[in-house]
Amino acid sequence: MKDREVHLRKIVRDGKVLILAMDQGMEHGPVDFNARNINPEYVLDIASKGGFTGLAIQKGIARHYKECYSGKVPLVLKLNGRTNIVPKDEIYSSQVASVKEAVKLGADAIGYTLYVGSPREADMFREFGKVQEEAEDYGLPCVVWAYPRGRFVQDEKSADTIAYAARVALELGADVVKVNYPGSVEGMKKVVAAAGRCKVISAGGSKQSDAEFLAKVRDVMASGAVGLAVGRNVWQNDNPMKIAEELKKIVYK
Amino acid sequence: MKDREVHLRKIVRDGKVLILAMDQGMEHGPVDFNARNINPEYVLDIASKGGFTGLAIQKGIARHYKECYSGKVPLVLKLNGRTNIVPKDEIYSSQVASVKEAVKLGADAIGYTLYVGSPREADMFREFGKVQEEAEDYGLPCVVWAYPRGRFVQDEKSADTIAYAARVALELGADVVKVNYPGSVEGMKKVVAAAGRCKVISAGGSKQSDAEFLAKVRDVMASGAVGLAVGRNVWQNDNPMKIAEELKKIVYK
Amino acid sequence: MKDREVHLRKIVRDGKVLILAMDQGMEHGPVDFNARNINPEYVLDIASKGGFTGLAIQKGIARHYKECYSGKVPLVLKLNGRTNIVPKDEIYSSQVASVKEAVKLGADAIGYTLYVGSPREADMFREFGKVQEEAEDYGLPCVVWAYPRGRFVQDEKSADTIAYAARVALELGADVVKVNYPGSVEGMKKVVAAAGRCKVISAGGSKQSDAEFLAKVRDVMASGAVGLAVGRNVWQNDNPMKIAEELKKIVYK
Amino acid sequence: MKDREVHLRKIVRDGKVLILAMDQGMEHGPVDFNARNINPEYVLDIASKGGFTGLAIQKGIARHYKECYSGKVPLVLKLNGRTNIVPKDEIYSSQVASVKEAVKLGADAIGYTLYVGSPREADMFREFGKVQEEAEDYGLPCVVWAYPRGRFVQDEKSADTIAYAARVALELGADVVKVNYPGSVEGMKKVVAAAGRCKVISAGGSKQSDAEFLAKVRDVMASGAVGLAVGRNVWQNDNPMKIAEELKKIVYK
Amino acid sequence: MKDREVHLRKIVRDGKVLILAMDQGMEHGPVDFNARNINPEYVLDIASKGGFTGLAIQKGIARHYKECYSGKVPLVLKLNGRTNIVPKDEIYSSQVASVKEAVKLGADAIGYTLYVGSPREADMFREFGKVQEEAEDYGLPCVVWAYPRGRFVQDEKSADTIAYAARVALELGADVVKVNYPGSVEGMKKVVAAAGRCKVISAGGSKQSDAEFLAKVRDVMASGAVGLAVGRNVWQNDNPMKIAEELKKIVYK
Repeated sequence: MKDREVHLRKIVRDGKVLILAMDQGMEHGPVDFNARNINPEYVLDIASKGGFTGLAIQKGIARHYKECYSGKVPLVLKLNGRTNIVPKDEIYSSQVASVKEAVKLGADAIGYTLYVGSPREADMFREFGKVQEEAEDYGLPCVVWAYPRGRFVQDEKSADTIAYAARVALELGADVVKVNYPGSVEGMKKVVAAAGRCKVISAGGSKQSDAEFLAKVRDVMASGAVGLAVGRNVWQNDNPMKIAEELKKIVYK
Repeated sequence: MKDREVHLRKIVRDGKVLILAMDQGMEHGPVDFNARNINPEYVLDIASKGGFTGLAIQKGIARHYKECYSGKVPLVLKLNGRTNIVPKDEIYSSQVASVKEAVKLGADAIGYTLYVGSPREADMFREFGKVQEEAEDYGLPCVVWAYPRGRFVQDEKSADTIAYAARVALELGADVVKVNYPGSVEGMKKVVAAAGRCKVISAGGSKQSDAEFLAKVRDVMASGAVGLAVGRNVWQNDNPMKIAEELKKIVYK
Repeated sequence: MKDREVHLRKIVRDGKVLILAMDQGMEHGPVDFNARNINPEYVLDIASKGGFTGLAIQKGIARHYKECYSGKVPLVLKLNGRTNIVPKDEIYSSQVASVKEAVKLGADAIGYTLYVGSPREADMFREFGKVQEEAEDYGLPCVVWAYPRGRFVQDEKSADTIAYAARVALELGADVVKVNYPGSVEGMKKVVAAAGRCKVISAGGSKQSDAEFLAKVRDVMASGAVGLAVGRNVWQNDNPMKIAEELKKIVYK
Repeated sequence: MKDREVHLRKIVRDGKVLILAMDQGMEHGPVDFNARNINPEYVLDIASKGGFTGLAIQKGIARHYKECYSGKVPLVLKLNGRTNIVPKDEIYSSQVASVKEAVKLGADAIGYTLYVGSPREADMFREFGKVQEEAEDYGLPCVVWAYPRGRFVQDEKSADTIAYAARVALELGADVVKVNYPGSVEGMKKVVAAAGRCKVISAGGSKQSDAEFLAKVRDVMASGAVGLAVGRNVWQNDNPMKIAEELKKIVYK
Repeated sequence: MKDREVHLRKIVRDGKVLILAMDQGMEHGPVDFNARNINPEYVLDIASKGGFTGLAIQKGIARHYKECYSGKVPLVLKLNGRTNIVPKDEIYSSQVASVKEAVKLGADAIGYTLYVGSPREADMFREFGKVQEEAEDYGLPCVVWAYPRGRFVQDEKSADTIAYAARVALELGADVVKVNYPGSVEGMKKVVAAAGRCKVISAGGSKQSDAEFLAKVRDVMASGAVGLAVGRNVWQNDNPMKIAEELKKIVYK
């Protein structure tokens, strides 16, 4: 068993991945939250009790709220980030935490966002290249958020473009790649094929009705993806534990 | 008790924070000063005798005036800075002192400014990420000046935008975040909620009448913030010790 | 025998070089692949059984598919890369893997792309300079993909311009330089002369008919080049082992 | 006595500073010189015999002409520089020598230029921040050339703007700040006040008649500044030793 | 005797310097070569037998052709380079080899190009500053190619501008500076005066008739320069050994 398998087995359960992400405070701002879920304790409690295989957060949340998740759900430490105040034309996400910090905080994986096709993709590719090398040295797997974005990207939602981003994640050394669902099982199958041995998971996306969301989850799983990284569809839900249960039924069936 | 608690307890007294800031010579220029307070000795004397829990200055002031504050008031060393001659469209504050220098000068916290939403936020996020990591290693807490600013920011004073900046400070690992007061208790409550376990303090802002200033202080405290970082409203005041007394009455009541 | 000869002798057999490249997923995207060859296992199997002297891939492929090529075909690890979503006006390929990673993965050579004449050639020259120095320390030879490209390049296909790029590769320390075939034996002879003791190989280029492709290979070999780095003309071929056989007959004759 | 006092006492004599600067070959070009003073030996001889407390030169002069000044006049090694061929809109002076080189060459202080208000002030602030930290570690004081300059600076000669630059030098850790004389004793007093415990010296400026120059020196000293850093008004003078004598009479009176 | 004198004495013979340069393959491309001299062996043979005091080449040539020059002519390793495909408006030459590589290859000096007055002079000044410091540590002298160039340079050939570039080389620590001949003995005397103790040599320039070239060489030597760095006028010459002989007669007379 390779070093990184030890950690990878924590965020991959029965071959499936189900991550709860709460980096929206950084990426989107408080607009994504209400009076209840603006409190990280509320969301971390869902992550801890909802049977997730990973919790994706920034280091500030990780260090201030250790007792809320530690030993309850594996940590996927996001190492880069940006706000959405800066327009996406030249989109770039800079590294804000180190692999060593992830190790120190007890993370079982690191998370990194790559905006494929951005005028600044070169900077992100270089920085992720070093992060992946160091993570490998520590035996930590890498979960890559791979999004085609920036002024040169014609259609962020086209299956071919998303498949390109997923392939880039594979070639740069990701273990798991999170993509936006391209809207069809057929399209997602292309993405999964392009990613090869890099496991594909789908973003949950913005809040939908339970029925719409669960239908999408079924399609994701039908395409050969191994799971999802969800956020708003769970913690914006009035009954997060219930939707988490239904989600797991589909993912682990 | 975590390492940084040792230091944090010095700048947080009874759960409250009251910092005197004198970095205006760098940030605004001599225009903020008169013949009396242009002399750092005058301001440092107020900091030492006024019962403040911290003194925020640049390293040049810290090293030239050690005997004026050392052992009298905890030092919050500002690690980055800029002049206001350069317009704020692409606002950026570069690192000018290291965490090691802060340790050497006996600081109990470091101070760092983040212009959230600036075209150069990525540079500041990356640099602060490293500073926070190193400060953590030395057990030094981080006080972040979080200001939404730059050509992409629609309204620097909106509560939602200020709350976004405060959330970014939390996610990047700040222990205390200093924000501009958004103008209403309701707005400030949003900011405090968004900052979670990161303590919120309000900037004092430009000089007001004593009555106006103290009314604002009352509102700040009513919103759940833990204190203020003040400057001009104290050392531009004709009777700085008197206003400091009144300020403490409200903050510590 | 110099250190690097040990490794160089693995990718140069009887004075000839025949590399199978599969970095198109990164450089061109999934558009280059079909349902069969999108799977790296399929292509790596061709590389392993087809008698190639090297396999050029990115580190993500190398680490995920070790058992598919290891001990079967020498590894040429590509250390930089880009997507073709970003236009080529200011073309730049950033470093995404280190020489140390190449050593760790058991590579016998490193691969590096230089876009000669690009507005950003200076960055690539500097980065390759360091890579070559470190590779030399480890005894690893360097294969340079030398392409004149970017808004200042009048004609990417002119023999003189390609010869310039090949000469740059020689002067910067390449052991093998891969160029695009300039379209004539006479032109390729100029390129070979300009490259001096740096061995020249030709890119295979986009998919052609077998006859056209093999005619080109004959011309390449007639010009004094020592071989090719092929990709699409082999693994897009319906019968890759057959074309590989015919290719070797010409190269090794 | 602090470490840096040992060195500071060499360039500050009886509380006064009188530096001879010869970095004009770099900053202005040979146009500042005639057939006699183009020879560094001529100028270094004046520095050695004229009773100056410091000689400000670049490392190339320092290493080629050691025997002309060593043991005769303290060395203030300039660590950054630029030519005036590049326009001043985005003015920047890059670091060209290290603190370690200054130590090795036996310098008693380092010299650094900051163009306050330049679009690139952030780069210079960051670089000087590190230089000052390292100089402190070696016990070497810092003399800062603080000039408001670049396209955002309305009036380089206004006392308020010069006072701002002097304050920045203080806050960033300078021990001595060299400014351009703002044209009046009153203006210079503002500058001296803004600089606090950082000692202020005036540039000599371009060549004037002896009478004009000495009148200016009297005004400089009357304002509370501790001396000057002169160049052209001494070594362009037909009788440099005589003007140096008169200069000292005013400075040390 | 200083450390660097050991090496300097190899490239300076009887006070004179005569370097054969073959970096034109990088700087100008194959257009400078014919079928014979495109082969580095041909040019290195001239360098070895022609009585030159130095051979200026890039590291790729140095490592591939060691036996052609080693022990026969001192090596001046060029550490930076560029192609002329990129226009000279913002001219910049990036570092492509290290001082350590020069030491390892047995060089007796390093060569570095500075485009004085370029919008990017600051980058070259900073990089050369570090190179010179490290070369000093190894006892290696620095030969600087100092060319005024880029969109801010009015007249690259004016004696005053060339003298400025030579002075910059002196101030930054060069031991030998190579300049373009300004067209007159009087002009070159200005350059030599501005360079002080930094020895001045003239570029050979583009190919001229033997008579014209030798007349220029006589003028160069009459101006106080100590020699030349030649290339095309020797190895493009039909009888390179003959012109080398005539050249030496003038330089060493």
